[in-house]
Amino acid sequence: MKAVTAFAPATVANVSCGFDILGFAIGDMGDRVKVSLSDQPGLRVVSITGDGGRLPLEAEKNTCTVAIQAFLDRLNANQGLDISLMKGLPLGSGMGSSAASAAAALMAVNELMGTPFTKTELVPFAMEAERVACGAAHADNVAPSILGGFVLIRDYAPLDIVKLPVPEGLYTTLIHPHIELRTADSRSVLRRQISLQDAVVQSGNIAGLISALYTSDLKLLGRSLKDVIAEPYRALLIPGFYELREAIQKAGALGSGISGSGPTLFVLSESREIAAAVAKVSEEVYAKIGLGVDVSVAEVNPIGAYVIESV
Amino acid sequence: MKAVTAFAPATVANVSCGFDILGFAIGDMGDRVKVSLSDQPGLRVVSITGDGGRLPLEAEKNTCTVAIQAFLDRLNANQGLDISLMKGLPLGSGMGSSAASAAAALMAVNELMGTPFTKTELVPFAMEAERVACGAAHADNVAPSILGGFVLIRDYAPLDIVKLPVPEGLYTTLIHPHIELRTADSRSVLRRQISLQDAVVQSGNIAGLISALYTSDLKLLGRSLKDVIAEPYRALLIPGFYELREAIQKAGALGSGISGSGPTLFVLSESREIAAAVAKVSEEVYAKIGLGVDVSVAEVNPIGAYVIESV
Repeated sequence: MKAVTAFAPATVANVSCGFDILGFAIGDMGDRVKVSLSDQPGLRVVSITGDGGRLPLEAEKNTCTVAIQAFLDRLNANQGLDISLMKGLPLGSGMGSSAASAAAALMAVNELMGTPFTKTELVPFAMEAERVACGAAHADNVAPSILGGFVLIRDYAPLDIVKLPVPEGLYTTLIHPHIELRTADSRSVLRRQISLQDAVVQSGNIAGLISALYTSDLKLLGRSLKDVIAEPYRALLIPGFYELREAIQKAGALGSGISGSGPTLFVLSESREIAAAVAKVSEEVYAKIGLGVDVSVAEVNPIGAYVIESV
Repeated sequence: MKAVTAFAPATVANVSCGFDILGFAIGDMGDRVKVSLSDQPGLRVVSITGDGGRLPLEAEKNTCTVAIQAFLDRLNANQGLDISLMKGLPLGSGMGSSAASAAAALMAVNELMGTPFTKTELVPFAMEAERVACGAAHADNVAPSILGGFVLIRDYAPLDIVKLPVPEGLYTTLIHPHIELRTADSRSVLRRQISLQDAVVQSGNIAGLISALYTSDLKLLGRSLKDVIAEPYRALLIPGFYELREAIQKAGALGSGISGSGPTLFVLSESREIAAAVAKVSEEVYAKIGLGVDVSVAEVNPIGAYVIESV
């Protein structure tokens, strides 16, 4: 084997009441990474496509190479590698773009090196890439991008990851209004202190959501998709948030939330038809506001990252 | 049918990271209530045994009659009833004593009146009794006492109750140190504001605990049984709390918590042998302190309240 190409999907992190602990993988949008053996020592990013020239080729700044370097360090390996990144996800949109690149890179290099690690064991390497990309070693995008489905990050010290079941027929609509929202701003509006009452409400909702995933009780899932901790503050940074929420509820959605730190919103629905209706009303809301928007519909992705080709 | 006798088990509320939202039913300890048709109008408590004379016979103060009155009011029924309460649970111990009385009374009257309500529909009537007994219409004791197993109270407005599965082989040790602890004191030590970080940790743990119940992953259950919101403050009101926690961990327990608002502690273990070992070390800890303690071992009760006899 001389070269492996792998794919990793987009993800939604901060899933409503699962603020900071829950993410899920989305449909078939994602990034592809090809990793090839090289006779020259070290890691080289030989090409990046689909990013509009915005991503750094320097190995120490690129999430693919940072992840692969962490992987090689753990193996005490010193293999020279060439890396090609084909972006399928828009940057900075709250769809886990940097995480998908790292996840695809790790799937490819793991296969190329004889699969020394399980998927779950790859997560910490991808977290190193998140540290470079976002300033914090979050797992709530990288873990679902690698593992697929809904993934709970119960704890970080030590890392405790729980793959959760995906109810059949669960569709997501992603709504990406064309505004720039800095993660720093999105974090700064959060309250450092919250009321005990809000914490209890959030606990009840995440408990209901986890139960709903195991029992495929989509009505319970809908009732549980409420975030009283982050959303009330972050919603103010997203134009049209409340109009949109009302419109998608009328369209029959189960529930919604802010993906990652925004500005993308995710909506969950119990059929492709409702998810498409949600997409339509979202376009109407943003047309009225006069803001551009990208909207897409996809199933929740139960598979996560996978190898496309080995040569 | 002229008279029905029903049983309802003890319960643990505030199950660690499930503070204010999660309870479970315990073994075969509990209260029995006999409800008999009477030609005289109104509700009468004709006898109470096992309470050491501490419980009120007045209908408006007794949890059995308050619950039954709420039940009759909903039916617009005006049946005269005689009520006999046989307490099997100590009062004010944090084992859901008042809840078990109300739950048994409701099971009995529901059967006597031709089962107009499901078990879940009985919960709001029992909550009325809790309002009288504790000053707040909690459901986290009454719901598991009626339904059995682990029960999530996701929300109160409207009431949203989720019965959760019970992993096989899960045993609880109840440790009741002989101190008096007023619920008001136990509530007053709680912080009204908590850090966002603690709220996220609590969310991760309750999510892990719910997942563990569905997958019977008892190790995950043990890792998740951590309460960072209430326990750090309430522990200070319970003599020997930290020595005890260390001792039961050494004895192999999965985890522990304060039952209700204390002073009873519950411990979960993956076998009857470990639960018994936990009981033994608990007695040793309190013997060293010089404080009396009641200790008991039981399975988690998956059934809840049931009718013993109809005549």
